[in-house]
Amino acid sequence: MMNYHGGQLKKEGLIDLSVNIPQIKFENELKALIYDSLEEMMKYPEIDGITARRSIGEALGLSESEIVLGNGATDLIYLIARALKFESAVILQPTFTEYERALKQNQTEIEHVATFMERDLNMMHVSDAVLKTARLRFGRMAEAAYFCNPNNPTGHFIHADEIEKFLALFPENEVPTLVIDESFVEFKDRPDHHEKMKVLTQKYPIIIIRSMTKTYRVPGIRIGYLFGSKFLIEKINKLREPWALNHFALRMIPYFMKQSAFRSDLEKWVITESTWVEDQFKGINGVDVFSAEANFVLIKLDYEVEICEKIYRDLIDQDVHFRKCLDFRGLDASYYRIAISTREENQKMINAFRSVLKAYIKSVK
Amino acid sequence: MMNYHGGQLKKEGLIDLSVNIPQIKFENELKALIYDSLEEMMKYPEIDGITARRSIGEALGLSESEIVLGNGATDLIYLIARALKFESAVILQPTFTEYERALKQNQTEIEHVATFMERDLNMMHVSDAVLKTARLRFGRMAEAAYFCNPNNPTGHFIHADEIEKFLALFPENEVPTLVIDESFVEFKDRPDHHEKMKVLTQKYPIIIIRSMTKTYRVPGIRIGYLFGSKFLIEKINKLREPWALNHFALRMIPYFMKQSAFRSDLEKWVITESTWVEDQFKGINGVDVFSAEANFVLIKLDYEVEICEKIYRDLIDQDVHFRKCLDFRGLDASYYRIAISTREENQKMINAFRSVLKAYIKSVK
Repeated sequence: MMNYHGGQLKKEGLIDLSVNIPQIKFENELKALIYDSLEEMMKYPEIDGITARRSIGEALGLSESEIVLGNGATDLIYLIARALKFESAVILQPTFTEYERALKQNQTEIEHVATFMERDLNMMHVSDAVLKTARLRFGRMAEAAYFCNPNNPTGHFIHADEIEKFLALFPENEVPTLVIDESFVEFKDRPDHHEKMKVLTQKYPIIIIRSMTKTYRVPGIRIGYLFGSKFLIEKINKLREPWALNHFALRMIPYFMKQSAFRSDLEKWVITESTWVEDQFKGINGVDVFSAEANFVLIKLDYEVEICEKIYRDLIDQDVHFRKCLDFRGLDASYYRIAISTREENQKMINAFRSVLKAYIKSVK
Repeated sequence: MMNYHGGQLKKEGLIDLSVNIPQIKFENELKALIYDSLEEMMKYPEIDGITARRSIGEALGLSESEIVLGNGATDLIYLIARALKFESAVILQPTFTEYERALKQNQTEIEHVATFMERDLNMMHVSDAVLKTARLRFGRMAEAAYFCNPNNPTGHFIHADEIEKFLALFPENEVPTLVIDESFVEFKDRPDHHEKMKVLTQKYPIIIIRSMTKTYRVPGIRIGYLFGSKFLIEKINKLREPWALNHFALRMIPYFMKQSAFRSDLEKWVITESTWVEDQFKGINGVDVFSAEANFVLIKLDYEVEICEKIYRDLIDQDVHFRKCLDFRGLDASYYRIAISTREENQKMINAFRSVLKAYIKSVK
């Protein structure tokens, strides 16, 4: 399963749009931060990362004890699964595959609901579908419900107001613990969503996972964090191993938390470029594009899967790499996830895509 | 429990001998390696660290599939505990406290045997004591036996020939899985031990943990690895999360594996300085010193614990920090672990220790 993840094709000059990392970055400041703290790699990092947790807590209006750090968001997905050991869980699909893998390692029974195949979500309908599916399988609602928000790979974003509606529909003794992966949430400014989520975490059992990998473009450093309902955070923190984060990760966190100007630039870039890419795809016959709420778009090609495979390979020959979606539940070879990049790379991608498609245009279903 | 670990006292000018990291290092090469690969922190690290695993495998004469990487050795201690989920385990004490914590998280029943309170170990006696203790508690030998080799904090080293004797004494259906933490083994050159351990891993169920933190002085980077009996490694690798190591860790591993000249210098330093420190302590009345097989020594002060506490605090006033051993099972406030440092720091430490002791010399038991 691991080998399906993006970013694994090595080719000289490749425009790799199979991984969702943003194209704006602040290399020089990060390099300076690393140079300034090189000596410290020869000391133990803070055993519990308390300084970094405090800086996140301050930004979120929480205390450091309400923050758990992760060696990347993926590490946290596994930590949650083993700390909370849910008997059963529903995963809203198609989505990031590591939730399922982490839950299975902990013997959680899993049911999948194909929520994100719909374009427009009605969270009351989703709630109803989730509850019915779970009851059919488990005799009652599952202990947990997992979703990614905005969702990878479909791009759906569910506002906190909608999450509240979703939760309100469960009978009191069947309210699930929500595990929400907000790895891509910071690509747009959503202050009212965040405020409302904070209120919801006090009323309902909720965990929110964040990734610095995506927002700040440092996948090589491994930084994630989570927060949420206090009693859940306490359980998770008890299992957090000592020295879980490396020195550079711990040094970068307080720095990143202060970068509001960067986040604002990031948002402008995502809105401008994702709109541009979406519009380009909309203008191409035989391509269906999902509306993007993060730094990637999902497209569906209206061709037989054999032809889709050919298009994918022809694109690689033209140095453009899309993310295949075969490992996502419910998606076949006609779906591709494409990271938003610089205008130059986006333009090259669209040009290559148009030119590749010409050979197959008569095959549009 | 976490807060007992060394290295947590912050004081200007402190000679911190509470953490066991060596004093020789190769900063410039490491800095160059980081500078050269800075761009890569903006890409995902290798998902399974295959290049780094291959370099370790080559050095050990194993294939990459027989190596598991860890975000530090501590991460591996937790990974083993959850991958193998032993019903019961015996820990040879006093030793590093994380084995117990990791096992408890996985509901393993634990029995402790005070092996390392003896100066000279007879592994047949140890085997006998372990088996008897386990049978009394579990009705049979425990599923696993844990020890640290050389042991932290006592410094005992058990050669593979002795480990074989230890294992040979268990009835065939009661042979435990050995989990051996060799985090400190590379401070001396032990080729015949390593060769023999390799043979033993084919005959008995054995896992060997190694740390690069100690040997190469990069605790801030988080690098450990393990190897051993194939069927155990397969089980552990199945639970290894994707992207478990950061980019810098993965880049350093192949570099470290090639540093045989460094390891040879390291050994010379450890032998020279640990012998010197041991000899100094032996010349001081009221101090009992354990023979060092790694880069630290354990001492026992022949004073009442109240006076030991005073000595410890007086030493901090003189800018020397020993590692208290209260968190190690069976050790009280009269035991202190002291990292071997440069001759200059070792000399300062001994001078400070002698001068502090003067005030209490009449109190020697």
